[in-house]
Amino acid sequence: MPTVLAVDVNGHRTELPLPWLRDSCRCADCVHPSGQRTVDPAAVAAAMVDTWAVSGDALRVVWSSGHVSDYSLSVLVAPAPPAPVETWDASTFLSVPSGRHDELVSSPAEMADWLDQLVRYGFAVVSGVPVADGEVARFAERFSYVRVTNYGRFFDVRTVVDPTNLAYSSLGLAPHTDNPYRDPVPTVQLLHCLEASTSGGDNSLVDGFRAAAVLRAADVEAFAALCATSVEFRYADSEAELVARLPVFELDDRHEVRSVRFNPRSIQPPPLGTPMLDAWYRGYTALAAIVQDPAMQVCFRLSPGDLFVVDNRRVLHGRTAFDPSAGSRHLQGCYADIDGVRSTLGVLLRSSADPVDRIIDVFRRRGDEAYLGEPVSMSQHMIQTALEAQAAGASDAVVAAALLHDIGHLVHDLGDDAAQRGIDARHEDLGAAWLSPFLGPEVTGPVRLHVAAKRYLCTVEPAYFATLSPASVETYHLQGGPMSPDEVAAFETSPGWRDAVAVRRWDDMGKDPARPTPPISTFEPLLRRLLLH
Amino acid sequence: MPTVLAVDVNGHRTELPLPWLRDSCRCADCVHPSGQRTVDPAAVAAAMVDTWAVSGDALRVVWSSGHVSDYSLSVLVAPAPPAPVETWDASTFLSVPSGRHDELVSSPAEMADWLDQLVRYGFAVVSGVPVADGEVARFAERFSYVRVTNYGRFFDVRTVVDPTNLAYSSLGLAPHTDNPYRDPVPTVQLLHCLEASTSGGDNSLVDGFRAAAVLRAADVEAFAALCATSVEFRYADSEAELVARLPVFELDDRHEVRSVRFNPRSIQPPPLGTPMLDAWYRGYTALAAIVQDPAMQVCFRLSPGDLFVVDNRRVLHGRTAFDPSAGSRHLQGCYADIDGVRSTLGVLLRSSADPVDRIIDVFRRRGDEAYLGEPVSMSQHMIQTALEAQAAGASDAVVAAALLHDIGHLVHDLGDDAAQRGIDARHEDLGAAWLSPFLGPEVTGPVRLHVAAKRYLCTVEPAYFATLSPASVETYHLQGGPMSPDEVAAFETSPGWRDAVAVRRWDDMGKDPARPTPPISTFEPLLRRLLLH
Repeated sequence: MPTVLAVDVNGHRTELPLPWLRDSCRCADCVHPSGQRTVDPAAVAAAMVDTWAVSGDALRVVWSSGHVSDYSLSVLVAPAPPAPVETWDASTFLSVPSGRHDELVSSPAEMADWLDQLVRYGFAVVSGVPVADGEVARFAERFSYVRVTNYGRFFDVRTVVDPTNLAYSSLGLAPHTDNPYRDPVPTVQLLHCLEASTSGGDNSLVDGFRAAAVLRAADVEAFAALCATSVEFRYADSEAELVARLPVFELDDRHEVRSVRFNPRSIQPPPLGTPMLDAWYRGYTALAAIVQDPAMQVCFRLSPGDLFVVDNRRVLHGRTAFDPSAGSRHLQGCYADIDGVRSTLGVLLRSSADPVDRIIDVFRRRGDEAYLGEPVSMSQHMIQTALEAQAAGASDAVVAAALLHDIGHLVHDLGDDAAQRGIDARHEDLGAAWLSPFLGPEVTGPVRLHVAAKRYLCTVEPAYFATLSPASVETYHLQGGPMSPDEVAAFETSPGWRDAVAVRRWDDMGKDPARPTPPISTFEPLLRRLLLH
Repeated sequence: MPTVLAVDVNGHRTELPLPWLRDSCRCADCVHPSGQRTVDPAAVAAAMVDTWAVSGDALRVVWSSGHVSDYSLSVLVAPAPPAPVETWDASTFLSVPSGRHDELVSSPAEMADWLDQLVRYGFAVVSGVPVADGEVARFAERFSYVRVTNYGRFFDVRTVVDPTNLAYSSLGLAPHTDNPYRDPVPTVQLLHCLEASTSGGDNSLVDGFRAAAVLRAADVEAFAALCATSVEFRYADSEAELVARLPVFELDDRHEVRSVRFNPRSIQPPPLGTPMLDAWYRGYTALAAIVQDPAMQVCFRLSPGDLFVVDNRRVLHGRTAFDPSAGSRHLQGCYADIDGVRSTLGVLLRSSADPVDRIIDVFRRRGDEAYLGEPVSMSQHMIQTALEAQAAGASDAVVAAALLHDIGHLVHDLGDDAAQRGIDARHEDLGAAWLSPFLGPEVTGPVRLHVAAKRYLCTVEPAYFATLSPASVETYHLQGGPMSPDEVAAFETSPGWRDAVAVRRWDDMGKDPARPTPPISTFEPLLRRLLLH
């Protein structure tokens, strides 16, 4: 009895296991109108094929039970892989991901942008939050649900005499996970500044996923010990007695870190006899040093009305010591959960399917990221490149290619279609693929070729190489260095290669931090004229 | 440079790794009065010993930094192992773990007993909860914190036309995890019956940890596939878009199941190409069958005012279909978290340190458990054995030994001292060890020897063996069967062996389900007379 159904997909023989195939049916009998599935697991195990047929992308299976399933082969065999996480350190951001309270609460698009930053980087800042008691919880409820704890719906963080929690002292706190002694740990924390007249008390954030990667690269055995060893985290006061037993790093099924739990104040020594105890202590000590390394920390000072939010399973937060005699420091905090954040973002994004809106969204959400080693942001660089193209009298399509040439850097976790086209691809391929559903080859061709054009120019114009910025020289070698004669010949037959060379020259001119740069929205009419349909 | 300090503990050379030893210091400099630790991880890594000395159980270390640490060796080397989980199925309980609302809200001890059941078994029932809107959330707040979700602080479960969630239909629901599409999943769910005039809609609960163990024993490869493969769980309606990606079974660092996530309505097929996909489907289908096996299910019907609570990472809940045309069914539910439950229980238990109170607590909390294959509960059996001893004119100490002979079955996760004395020990050793801090050898000796006494009697009195109940015959073989002549001779030199033989005979008489049994509290004065100090 066959246990798979073998079909041809794009010339490749592909085996579809029968239980999986039966389980993947999404007909009206198998999926309730609510979206919930009603496939009986017992029917899945017993699934046997009566007849089947392929027509183009369509596969129809008649099961021996009489049930009929219709599938799209391309959907069946190429589901979207999950987006990779982009980790960060002190050098990643030109400005901290942030939003303004009045804009967030009045504009769903602004809220979506800000939540996207929070989901992407594990933190985001807000300014202009009303300085009022409990406002931190009201703000949290705009995008998630408050997790009430023994500390209340929200809590005050200020210096008290004989604190029950060191957070209420004036001591500095190294970057840490909050409430690691809770299981489930609160997955989101907010801190809202109501008063800050002392010196010190600055905030520092560390990407715990990056810290884990640094440790993993430096001492994989120590990293493994921190993953494999559950330790106790404890907290007790007169009203609570909390203990969680979990490892410092939890991994997912792809062996990527999905949760960091690091807090020297509440962690307990592993019991004597724990396997890999030496490696565990090596990792624990190294991790403590990594998170205190200024090169890992994004630092800022909250003024009254500022608030920051962290994904508490990813981003560690700390503060410098402050002098309580020199003034007051008063924050309010609350906890929430990341599933609510993601849900709100998902619902907000449903309404933004227009391609030009998506391009503008990408620039607004991610354009502030630094452009490799250059003194401009990604959006400054791309918009300046487009201005150069306009000044040179280029066509709309080539201006668009100049504007969008590096969009691959910004889109590689922006939804199913981007991911399906190759999450690990080079940014030029990724950008071109992401644009291709709604912009033609006169735009996507130069985008795809603009890195090759740099190699081409360096090869055929020795003087060109001398004009490259230091960062561009560095990436040149990573990108393959000089072209061989065969590569040169092949390049000169590629559609759009001349436009790509032109884009490449403007590309080098779009790196001026002092040049005024108009907003991306000024290009909206041009982009709309180029839309495919 | 030595990396360990080698000490002699009870005649065994024991190596104490230096970073671990330094980290384990609990002096006032290393532990803040709040209980939070202030040991610098960097100091731990660099720890070097200057001098050290052992005096009895005390170890003093002077570190090269000048810091002085004092330890108790017995505490250092023998920390309490975690309590094992007792799983259950349809045959485990004589009556469902439950409490009465008026008693729970008026008595901290009753609440502690009830929470202990909830923590121990992953579920508990309450009767007499006021039939009022939102009462389910008010009750949850007595022992934890409500987890607000997109369904609100609490939600109604009744039949609606065109439900957005199958829970709001009249369909039967196989035992499942609630909200598996949420990460973090709600760890506690409550359901409160306000109206139940239909037929059907009965509730069934399954211990997911037991279900996992059944699958693991039957098909370890399928079990492994369900552990190793993260799958998506999805839910969407107009206001929410939730997705969690986690495996069906999550394991802890001891490879025990710590979380079950099973819900065929929201689980999505693993992507094609997933390793072990065949084994995954074998496990998925088998698990679906296991949780629908009546032998696994504890079933009950909620009447108005009844409420049940489940640990949603452990216990799956389901319901039978009902006929919405024949009457009404109206429940209200809410979510909460298990860390709050454990915290409340921990605080309540602080006040119950009196040894006799602890014995009475043990009987009340766990005495309703079935006594192996016998027709009586554990508390019925032990109290009837004590009544036999009293009827025979035994001394107080021997009556106490009869009363407490099987307490080892009930105490093996009741606190640090029990656990320290050997969680995996035989129940007679464990019970004697647990009692020994406050009862003398005239009580603990017969407790320790009562299993040996059975083997002794079977060996020296062939007629005795014929009197054993079938369950007792079965355990006899597990316990070692007949004694050798050397064993007989050694037994007859053990302190208290004659009392143990007497207890053993009464033991066999304490298995009458029809016999009226007084409450454990009637033995309180006798126990107090025997307390060591």
